[in-house]
Amino acid sequence: MTDRLRVHVDQQTWKPPYMRLTPEVWAEAARRRPELAAKLDLTFSDDWTEIGSRLADADIVICQGKPPEAVVKAAKNLKWIMATSAGIETMAPFDWLPASVRLSNNSGTHYPKTKEFAAMALAMLHFQTPHLATSQRDHAWAPRLDGLIAGKSVVVVGFGTLGQATAEAAKGLGLEVRAVRRNPASHPLADSMHAPDDLLAAAANADFLVCTLPLTETTRGFIGADAFDALKPGAGVVNIGRGPVMDYTALTPRLDDGRLSGAILDVFDKEPLAPESPLWDQKNLTIFPHMSSDDPTSYIPRSLDIFFENLDAFLAGAARLPNEIDRATGY
Amino acid sequence: MTDRLRVHVDQQTWKPPYMRLTPEVWAEAARRRPELAAKLDLTFSDDWTEIGSRLADADIVICQGKPPEAVVKAAKNLKWIMATSAGIETMAPFDWLPASVRLSNNSGTHYPKTKEFAAMALAMLHFQTPHLATSQRDHAWAPRLDGLIAGKSVVVVGFGTLGQATAEAAKGLGLEVRAVRRNPASHPLADSMHAPDDLLAAAANADFLVCTLPLTETTRGFIGADAFDALKPGAGVVNIGRGPVMDYTALTPRLDDGRLSGAILDVFDKEPLAPESPLWDQKNLTIFPHMSSDDPTSYIPRSLDIFFENLDAFLAGAARLPNEIDRATGY
Repeated sequence: MTDRLRVHVDQQTWKPPYMRLTPEVWAEAARRRPELAAKLDLTFSDDWTEIGSRLADADIVICQGKPPEAVVKAAKNLKWIMATSAGIETMAPFDWLPASVRLSNNSGTHYPKTKEFAAMALAMLHFQTPHLATSQRDHAWAPRLDGLIAGKSVVVVGFGTLGQATAEAAKGLGLEVRAVRRNPASHPLADSMHAPDDLLAAAANADFLVCTLPLTETTRGFIGADAFDALKPGAGVVNIGRGPVMDYTALTPRLDDGRLSGAILDVFDKEPLAPESPLWDQKNLTIFPHMSSDDPTSYIPRSLDIFFENLDAFLAGAARLPNEIDRATGY
Repeated sequence: MTDRLRVHVDQQTWKPPYMRLTPEVWAEAARRRPELAAKLDLTFSDDWTEIGSRLADADIVICQGKPPEAVVKAAKNLKWIMATSAGIETMAPFDWLPASVRLSNNSGTHYPKTKEFAAMALAMLHFQTPHLATSQRDHAWAPRLDGLIAGKSVVVVGFGTLGQATAEAAKGLGLEVRAVRRNPASHPLADSMHAPDDLLAAAANADFLVCTLPLTETTRGFIGADAFDALKPGAGVVNIGRGPVMDYTALTPRLDDGRLSGAILDVFDKEPLAPESPLWDQKNLTIFPHMSSDDPTSYIPRSLDIFFENLDAFLAGAARLPNEIDRATGY
């Protein structure tokens, strides 16, 4: 019995139903990896007081958001916290987390949905739909014809799950893909790779920019006026990463004067976007209410599949789990 | 010299620049088919009085819209009229056209652009963008999450160039494609083929309907209340064929009450759509100003390439040209 692992699962019953981690959803995922599931002793709850007592002897906890520090301190056996989200900015900074405890996320969960969204968003910018929505509000018949999207270019900023899904969508549309990533080693989904310091060179004269960056202290405000002005005049912009990574106060005047032809934003500094935000009425801007990446039919099942993939590595004694967060970079 | 063909070209200088058939554009197309072009004697003009005299000895005329009847009557050698448009409803009925004169269109020109538009429109309906545009007007954060579009179903009504381009786009998204066509022989881009009489069976419980029908006396009003009500509740609808083929007075109440989740319309009974049309403010409706199929960078070049393909068949004595209009069906 001593080689079995104690896993505690935060059920998250306060979240929308599709994000709840019930024993039933767990059982389904366990049936896909029975040999691994057999090595685990599970407990479930969603009250941090109760979780505290359950964590006392837990090896692993699966949860979302930062657990109370007292709970973590009391969990003397704790070796690994898996977050059932990709962005873990609400857990940063990580000074509350003992160095001996690994932290991982569910990156990868969002790939198929993001690929579909990115293909749509790029085509929408190509067909000038933000401009057309503004025209529709004005009852104006204002076509803007163009050639094919095939042959145009996109700079994809951030090249994790969301960035690679965007790149696969863009390649499917026949676009040239320029990727910006901290580690700019060549990648099969990108025609060129660029380090963050070379953002402006990567963006030079591109038809589209898609931001997929997570929010960290380094990425806050990373996409601003200089990036917008490096793009081709009339270019289109998408943000599916995190709101504060893109400077919306630099974006909107460029949508007003046509320097950019349109923007599609799925993420905002504060969500839900407040009814009084001027962004709702912004010319040539299309707002999505954070819908680019969550697939409610598979969110937790895919997250648990990713947990089991990481558990494989954990049991094998891997120095780093596939989804392990680097505390220095914050993702 | 007697085996050379006299071709008269209506330059259409009254059209937008990308639709004009200038000697320069002709020369470029001729360079792609020099062996065929060498067999032609060309004249250009865009005044029907002058065209009348040029047509007196012409074998072929390339034009758009119905030529004056007197001109056609005087053209004793005329064997073929090619229209540089796909829809030729403005030429119908065809009683002005001698039985000995073939009529063809430029179907095929619109394939690549339509494929890109259809992929976007289907994804936009999947991601509920018409609903979201209405919500944006209301400053309302109103996400509607769903799974993947892959695995959903679309009924494509009309299966010529636009229908097949739509089907190729839909297959690329992983959709089940049900095609409705006068000749329901099996087709590699469709999972099932249905005759027009079986429209309701084809539409049964489908997630999307895309209308690509040309306008003829038979197709007027073909997509109406019964087709909308056969679809899955919350389905989405697209019209890229011709406006009068779909009954918009039956469509709008279903967008109001949610029986349909959204519609994307690119064609209207009268274009441009008048500023006073109630469609502009219709809930859950996205309006495109006839942009789904024309590629201004290649419209006339592709039309001329199609002319040369048909000329090949014409010179070979084909009983029917690839793009020849069937006067009985009107397309």
